[in-house]
Amino acid sequence: MATVTPLMADGQAVSSVRFDERGLVPTIVQEDGTGDVLMMAWMNAESLRETLETGRTVFWSRSRQELWRKGDTSGDRQLVRRAMYDCDGDTLLFVVEQVGRGACHTGAHSCFTRFLGTPPAAPDNGEDDHE
Amino acid sequence: MATVTPLMADGQAVSSVRFDERGLVPTIVQEDGTGDVLMMAWMNAESLRETLETGRTVFWSRSRQELWRKGDTSGDRQLVRRAMYDCDGDTLLFVVEQVGRGACHTGAHSCFTRFLGTPPAAPDNGEDDHE
Repeated sequence: MATVTPLMADGQAVSSVRFDERGLVPTIVQEDGTGDVLMMAWMNAESLRETLETGRTVFWSRSRQELWRKGDTSGDRQLVRRAMYDCDGDTLLFVVEQVGRGACHTGAHSCFTRFLGTPPAAPDNGEDDHE
Repeated sequence: MATVTPLMADGQAVSSVRFDERGLVPTIVQEDGTGDVLMMAWMNAESLRETLETGRTVFWSRSRQELWRKGDTSGDRQLVRRAMYDCDGDTLLFVVEQVGRGACHTGAHSCFTRFLGTPPAAPDNGEDDHE
């Protein structure tokens, strides 16, 4: 169900987020259920606060230098289900329900569709023919 | 099976990676199979090349200003299974087999263990009692 629900922010947790010299923190967006990594974008303090308050992802657009309420134009909104920060406090992870076509501006489900190389040959998955 | 296998790098793909003004690119590490997001770290061109060539994650340590061959000290190595880059070419995603205790220097499986707030109340998952 595509329900938008604000999070009850933990003030101490939020205040331990470390923004970089530009005032930004890298934010990974992962899909709830599938576990697909959808995209990475940047938040500043204001977009983080608004994300938690509204329950929708809001980023800082470095190219446009403005708040970017994901999906306002495309409809491809992201409804926050879980919000985490890492051991150093310098990276965020939002687990979301992706609404619309997908997370990527290309229309793809995920921004990560291209490979840097050919994976090694898959191991033989024949049943019971080897340990 | 904890097998280290180099990737056959796609030169055109690798050359389209966009490093930031410090020569770094944020790199998400996800566990193969579980889909768990384990950590985020930074690569420069040399660590990316070495990662693909050796099949183990190698990062650039911003604090130590040196190559960081993940697991050399701890044993908690990451064996690359898939290597992707995003639509903008400015973020990488490595899907790995995590060896050892876990990805985090704290000994945790993932660096993302702490919540920024309380998730909304879970929806009623009772069976067949509502649409």
